Amino acid sequence: ISSWVISFCSSSQVTRSPLFPLSVGASSLQIYSGCHSTLNRIEEKAMDECEDDPKEFVKLTYEKLSVDYISELVTSPSCGAVSLFIGTTRNNFEGKKVVWLEYEAYAPMAETEIKKICRAVRQKWLTVKHIAVHHRLGLVPVTEASVVIAISSPHRNEALESLKYCLDTLKAKVPIWKKEIYEKEEYSWKENKECPWATHN
Amino acid sequence: ISSWVISFCSSSQVTRSPLFPLSVGASSLQIYSGCHSTLNRIEEKAMDECEDDPKEFVKLTYEKLSVDYISELVTSPSCGAVSLFIGTTRNNFEGKKVVWLEYEAYAPMAETEIKKICRAVRQKWLTVKHIAVHHRLGLVPVTEASVVIAISSPHRNEALESLKYCLDTLKAKVPIWKKEIYEKEEYSWKENKECPWATHN
Repeated sequence: ISSWVISFCSSSQVTRSPLFPLSVGASSLQIYSGCHSTLNRIEEKAMDECEDDPKEFVKLTYEKLSVDYISELVTSPSCGAVSLFIGTTRNNFEGKKVVWLEYEAYAPMAETEIKKICRAVRQKWLTVKHIAVHHRLGLVPVTEASVVIAISSPHRNEALESLKYCLDTLKAKVPIWKKEIYEKEEYSWKENKECPWATHN
Repeated sequence: ISSWVISFCSSSQVTRSPLFPLSVGASSLQIYSGCHSTLNRIEEKAMDECEDDPKEFVKLTYEKLSVDYISELVTSPSCGAVSLFIGTTRNNFEGKKVVWLEYEAYAPMAETEIKKICRAVRQKWLTVKHIAVHHRLGLVPVTEASVVIAISSPHRNEALESLKYCLDTLKAKVPIWKKEIYEKEEYSWKENKECPWATHN
């Protein structure tokens, strides 16, 4: 299972179809197996009759994340601002040399929590247009992205403020576990330290 | 002159070579005419002996901006965070339908001001690694990017905070003029309203 992708788009008209075991509980579901091409995006947008209605694109995937693709997903003709955050694997942690991070998630729960965050963003920033939260699972080598968040809005302040909120809340609330794999064949599983269930709290 | 690009990289070892009239005053200068390929990036990084020294990539260009390219420029093995802002042409302004924005700049002055902002960012956030500020000139159609700012840092807070400062200061200080071109063959030249020389202040 190295090429499947679970994608949630809250405003699309896709019927409920819990085809993949990990995705039970998703209110709408798309499965892609191809690359993140412009064609994907056009097909995705064409599925929706009203192209510029506010949308969320939530995805957990074992594939490499594409920043261009995700920024295009949220781009809107009525918006002048897109803010983005890319979380990448860093080559060190507490003096140890990290070679990979490995992410695991219980997908339905992670997806539910991310959807809650999207709703909270819309309640706090009424003019936010599209929100994309793509998280990679499995092994992520140094410099590659584990998470990309992108938000569009007519003006810049809402995009920037909601991005920070979305990211901080994702780190604190979404059950995605991270294993640091060190150069000398050691490893260590980590919760995000902000999580309420983190062991050091 | 639709395909030239002026690029400033403060930490590269390129000799002063004011080859292009608009770029007099740049302390180091590179001229590219190709597309923003991964190869460009590799060549650019290979030019610098110490690949992960903090760098600034400041560019004024008539070419389309590539978000992937710019995010790759600032990505660093020692950083876990990249923040990005993309300013795009919006299809409306005060009830009028906008079809294009047109940007003009006095390049040496714009470049000097952007370099000052980069220095200020480094003074305020000591752990910031790479900073890229790419601004498009000429006509920019609806949904395309006029400015992309990207900043990397080991942790997320510095990347997010410095991005907001960099963007706000760019809008307030850098002499880049914007012409809104409306559907009905009207147009209007605008300063950024935060600029001290803006007419309504």
